[in-house]
Amino acid sequence: MPITMSSASLPIFRTTLANLDHCLAKAQAHAAVRKFDPDVFVGVRLAPDMLPFAAQVRIACDAAKLAVARIGGIEAPKFEDNEATLDQLRARIARTLDFLASVPADGLDGREQVDITFPVGRDKTRTMKGEDYLRHWALPNFFFHVTTAYALLRHNGVDLGKADYLVGAQASA
Amino acid sequence: MPITMSSASLPIFRTTLANLDHCLAKAQAHAAVRKFDPDVFVGVRLAPDMLPFAAQVRIACDAAKLAVARIGGIEAPKFEDNEATLDQLRARIARTLDFLASVPADGLDGREQVDITFPVGRDKTRTMKGEDYLRHWALPNFFFHVTTAYALLRHNGVDLGKADYLVGAQASA
Repeated sequence: MPITMSSASLPIFRTTLANLDHCLAKAQAHAAVRKFDPDVFVGVRLAPDMLPFAAQVRIACDAAKLAVARIGGIEAPKFEDNEATLDQLRARIARTLDFLASVPADGLDGREQVDITFPVGRDKTRTMKGEDYLRHWALPNFFFHVTTAYALLRHNGVDLGKADYLVGAQASA
Repeated sequence: MPITMSSASLPIFRTTLANLDHCLAKAQAHAAVRKFDPDVFVGVRLAPDMLPFAAQVRIACDAAKLAVARIGGIEAPKFEDNEATLDQLRARIARTLDFLASVPADGLDGREQVDITFPVGRDKTRTMKGEDYLRHWALPNFFFHVTTAYALLRHNGVDLGKADYLVGAQASA
């Protein structure tokens, strides 16, 4: 099977979001052992003017959701951005995975040259072709927020290794 | 043009490494303004048992280099892993970009199903098909180390925004 727009996007988003969920589960387990409130993680930041953990997870979910919706010309579900606990953030990941599972591969295939216009910052938009958008915007942006979420947990003492990020629950199996 | 193994890999590695180089240049400029030794950045870490900045840049370069070499069945240049300054790390990025520029696109195309065996950890190997290796190992690993390098600079006060990571020097143009 040759590589396609769906094979180069959907499995990446699915696997990486499942691995992110696994990292959140490890953060909850870590807090339980150390007897602190796991939801302290929701607000942690790497710099005072950088988005907190909850936003990193939200944007990672939205990067996957919007990439698939925009490439496929499909309506994406709206999320409220009001998660205040790790359980709620895990539910958002689950809802994103549900949406990804609902998208048929052939809805994305052949869309390399479709024009995609999307907001960047407050009052600006950018237009890119489907494949350029996937490789130069959607994927880098998605991995940026997943890795920053990982880095925040790691920086705050959760026992994570790169295998948790790359292969998720199988890492400890 | 339909997406191919080369179009889904080479431009991503090239653009993102160029943007990483741009972030290192901003770190050097930041140190010059604040009058501290820019090479302090080489050793910074997000956790004491996590690899330092220099290793993040080295592994990002090697993730790109080895992905292309393994998918294409091409010999990759060896680097010494002895960089002690930001200039030396920028030179490693430049050498990696030179190698990527030397690889013809048709050396990677059609290699979706080739078996790739690569080391994981000390004494283990893993074998994946070409496309699985690209999407589930090479790309996530590459972005992990680029984003961690970015996070380290950001955490240490360099004036970076996501646009520096996504579009590099054009961000401030």
